[in-house]
Amino acid sequence: MSDFTPPVSDFRFLIHDVIGLGTVANLPAFSEISSDLVDAILEEAGKFASSVLAPINRIGDQEGARLLENGTVQTATGWKEAYAQFCEGGWQGISAPEAEGGMGLPILLGAAVAEMWQASNMAFALCPMLTAGAIEALTAHGSDDQRALYLSRMISGEWTGTMNLTEPQAGSDLSKVRSQAIPQDDGSYAITGQKIFITYGDHEMTENIVHLVLARTPDAPAGVKGISLFIVPKYLVSDNGEIGARNDVTCVSLEHKLGIHASPTAVLSFGDQGGATGYLVGEEGKGLAYMFTMMNNARLAVGQQGVAISERAFQQALDYAHTRKQGRDPQTGDEAPIIVHGDVQRMLMRMRSSTDAARVLSIYAACQLDLAHHLSDETARANAQARADLLIPLVKGWSTDLGVDNASLGVQVHGGMGFIEETGAAQHLRDARIAPIYEGTNGIQALDFIGRKVLRDNATTLKALLADIRETMRNSANTPVGLDHAVSQLEETTGIVINRCSKDDRMMQTLATPYLRQGALCISGWLMLRALDALDTSDASASFKEAKRRSCHFFFGQLLPEASFMATQIINSDMIELHDTQPLF
Amino acid sequence: MSDFTPPVSDFRFLIHDVIGLGTVANLPAFSEISSDLVDAILEEAGKFASSVLAPINRIGDQEGARLLENGTVQTATGWKEAYAQFCEGGWQGISAPEAEGGMGLPILLGAAVAEMWQASNMAFALCPMLTAGAIEALTAHGSDDQRALYLSRMISGEWTGTMNLTEPQAGSDLSKVRSQAIPQDDGSYAITGQKIFITYGDHEMTENIVHLVLARTPDAPAGVKGISLFIVPKYLVSDNGEIGARNDVTCVSLEHKLGIHASPTAVLSFGDQGGATGYLVGEEGKGLAYMFTMMNNARLAVGQQGVAISERAFQQALDYAHTRKQGRDPQTGDEAPIIVHGDVQRMLMRMRSSTDAARVLSIYAACQLDLAHHLSDETARANAQARADLLIPLVKGWSTDLGVDNASLGVQVHGGMGFIEETGAAQHLRDARIAPIYEGTNGIQALDFIGRKVLRDNATTLKALLADIRETMRNSANTPVGLDHAVSQLEETTGIVINRCSKDDRMMQTLATPYLRQGALCISGWLMLRALDALDTSDASASFKEAKRRSCHFFFGQLLPEASFMATQIINSDMIELHDTQPLF
Repeated sequence: MSDFTPPVSDFRFLIHDVIGLGTVANLPAFSEISSDLVDAILEEAGKFASSVLAPINRIGDQEGARLLENGTVQTATGWKEAYAQFCEGGWQGISAPEAEGGMGLPILLGAAVAEMWQASNMAFALCPMLTAGAIEALTAHGSDDQRALYLSRMISGEWTGTMNLTEPQAGSDLSKVRSQAIPQDDGSYAITGQKIFITYGDHEMTENIVHLVLARTPDAPAGVKGISLFIVPKYLVSDNGEIGARNDVTCVSLEHKLGIHASPTAVLSFGDQGGATGYLVGEEGKGLAYMFTMMNNARLAVGQQGVAISERAFQQALDYAHTRKQGRDPQTGDEAPIIVHGDVQRMLMRMRSSTDAARVLSIYAACQLDLAHHLSDETARANAQARADLLIPLVKGWSTDLGVDNASLGVQVHGGMGFIEETGAAQHLRDARIAPIYEGTNGIQALDFIGRKVLRDNATTLKALLADIRETMRNSANTPVGLDHAVSQLEETTGIVINRCSKDDRMMQTLATPYLRQGALCISGWLMLRALDALDTSDASASFKEAKRRSCHFFFGQLLPEASFMATQIINSDMIELHDTQPLF
Repeated sequence: MSDFTPPVSDFRFLIHDVIGLGTVANLPAFSEISSDLVDAILEEAGKFASSVLAPINRIGDQEGARLLENGTVQTATGWKEAYAQFCEGGWQGISAPEAEGGMGLPILLGAAVAEMWQASNMAFALCPMLTAGAIEALTAHGSDDQRALYLSRMISGEWTGTMNLTEPQAGSDLSKVRSQAIPQDDGSYAITGQKIFITYGDHEMTENIVHLVLARTPDAPAGVKGISLFIVPKYLVSDNGEIGARNDVTCVSLEHKLGIHASPTAVLSFGDQGGATGYLVGEEGKGLAYMFTMMNNARLAVGQQGVAISERAFQQALDYAHTRKQGRDPQTGDEAPIIVHGDVQRMLMRMRSSTDAARVLSIYAACQLDLAHHLSDETARANAQARADLLIPLVKGWSTDLGVDNASLGVQVHGGMGFIEETGAAQHLRDARIAPIYEGTNGIQALDFIGRKVLRDNATTLKALLADIRETMRNSANTPVGLDHAVSQLEETTGIVINRCSKDDRMMQTLATPYLRQGALCISGWLMLRALDALDTSDASASFKEAKRRSCHFFFGQLLPEASFMATQIINSDMIELHDTQPLF
């Protein structure tokens, strides 16, 4: 497997030149952030990704995580040591509040750093990703005591966190959660039930694991309003944080998965001995609402996995295309590496350009989250939040689909060698395939986008963004092929979506997926124009700027036109029969 | 893993109603073919696929083929028995000449049958696929003695065949083949060299294996004209066919692959003990030309793997969508299987409709090969051959890309369960991924299409086909959305292709891939219109006809518009910079 080169220059360009560091540095919360600090963090994180995480990615795939006969989960060679180094660097707390022991840095920067971890070793990076979600949930909803006891140890990485939502009958539909939480005299709850697909649900890298578990209290109403959130530590903890007895939660099995082999995906059984001790977070019945508060960050993070695996697959394919000799240079007639062939260049450009577009979308969305949290003006905060809410299903849905496509293209560039596991290209495809599924399938992202984010406010947030796109185009010295048309078409299909869905709400399901993709392409096109504009004043190297210029133009001419294909699907959707009865295939 | 239901009704419909059995039955070579015979063969082949091959597909994936310490290759449990049954059925010789012991049936019918084998068990079906290629090569170019000795035993399936082309430095570029063939006094040749990626390069299912090997004679010119074709049997054979001593060819290793685990992909070493005994096929220096004579059938067969894996993935996803309950029926509010959700229906319709379109394209192309071989009029034969030549890169390139996309969609329909290997959906994705690579990468298919099939005859063959499309549309009572536009656009881009490539022949590489996909979509659209037209008079069941009607209209409204996206890529290609120097990424 090829080395991983952290795309630090790309992040520097995006943060300094495209977004503008001032966008976050001008916020009171981040007044101490300097350009140098940003660069230093990107450099250090990149170094950690390339020198510690990337080298164990392949061995993690080969060995996987294993459930031993004694019931413990053994991570792959090097995992425990890498995790210890990760904690030493303080990386877990990069975007956590300083008051809780974190670095208190913008999500913008945390996102850049996280993408590098995902690219270097997706199976490893899932562990901090899940802990970050648990940190966010407890920061927002945990009691003072809970935060004092659990949060600081999770921010330091001393303990990891998990999310226990899914049950066999409750996947996308969490209203079906059946796990039980029975109140005990001491104020705790006895938790019973089985949870599946629990990422890093068990391991021995840390001395404790903090499970966040959705369960129902005895008198809870049916449906999602009866679900509460509980802390269930793997080992019970004394008030001063000392590890006590094993809690009544066991890892029953690990899944045998297509990819991310080194990430232990556990079936956890709670309460086989009568009940695991759990502690209610916040109020009863609000479990799902609490989960929603951390959903944006989690979905952003998964979307970034799509960008990350695209980047990694691209680097590996590019490396191979430079070294593999086959055929002749069309100019000189000499034996040549396959990168001289136009069709290979097309594949590499598809990967490069779509990765750049998905990256700028994710980084822009991350910045909107910072603004939503920290702008002083309430309306401005609300607007930033609405824009982040609009964009995040696009980041998650589109980028993770791209991750699969790009990893598949990466295999293709390798020819026959791509199909051989030793090459490493196939691992990226196997790893990438989970991202369109978890943290809300991409079908659910599309429904979220069309329903909650566009129809619910009658496209107000979307229209404000489209107005910004038009303004950027007016002010730009560049003329991006097709962007104007793409914006007009998105306006047109938005009208169709509003019109048709108001007549038949089943239409939303029919239109959602092409509408998400059209939206993502169009809005990314805007950000690629902003990137193109920013090249003029960037202090990046000439070769970097030339490469990005080509990437932007390739996007406009070759990738953005897919938005028009999606628009046609939407326009033609009135021909799709809504099946009152069982559909016929 | 779900059962496999052979799509016999689909093949009956395509052969009887869309193509018309008369198209082949009126050929003198096939005068004895009746409707009943066709149906009986489809039924029997379907039964064999579903009851013998499908049940061992998963175990083949799990066990794989293994190289034992004694140097023999052990196939997965059930393989040897299934292969014996395959031979008993006489299936290997279905399209081989009766004079050589085959059934002498049309390629049209052979293709239908082969698709079912590939769908039921792609790793198994590769073995007869490769043997069929060897049969075709020896039928066309072997001497009487060679045919008497090897061919009949390969047609019966008693011995299998392999194709030894690739070497580490010679993949897509066979001019780099280095293996040596030194003439011996007895008329044989001593073969030395290493071949890689040899499908079923070794196994113990049969008592002998007939390797067809490309190698160079000592005084051969450099490049492809110095390559000759040799028979190198695993065991030497006496003149009366008795098995003799082991030849000097050994299986050095088996590749550890992403998919098709049960298909042994061998590294073969020839001549470690001084030289393997090989027998020249035809004349020296014509090895590559001989390979080309069987290329159409081989590429058709690989293209069909894409259709096959799409069909299998669809069936499994449909089955899951009917049984997995999640969410509620939008009409009744009751708990419901996920197939009620419009977005799931969209995924399934994408799979169903694209599979139908790719299938009719492959079956039509197969029929053109029959016409090219057996029409009485020489010009008509040449026209059919030209049309087959035009279509086959589309079948191979487009269908195998679809195979990956559809297998990936199949995983997606399964949600989290799709990522778990036990489900079986992921195997289809892993298996499907090889088909865009081998038998000429899809990039090579695209270059073949644009260069040899369109530019070389100044689009004469393509234009004749487009005229047929227009005629079908004039005569059809149906109005397929967008087909007229798609044909016009293909005419437009064909003009652009001719124009731009005449000015700069590097443009061919830049335009090839979108042009292939545009062509495949447009021509499949024509055949879907012919299918729609044929529904009126078909004796298929009402539910079959309704399902196909929906599939055709989904293709026109939702999938065919991608052709316009591809056209835009081609039109915008003048913005892509042709890189005189090392490209910048």
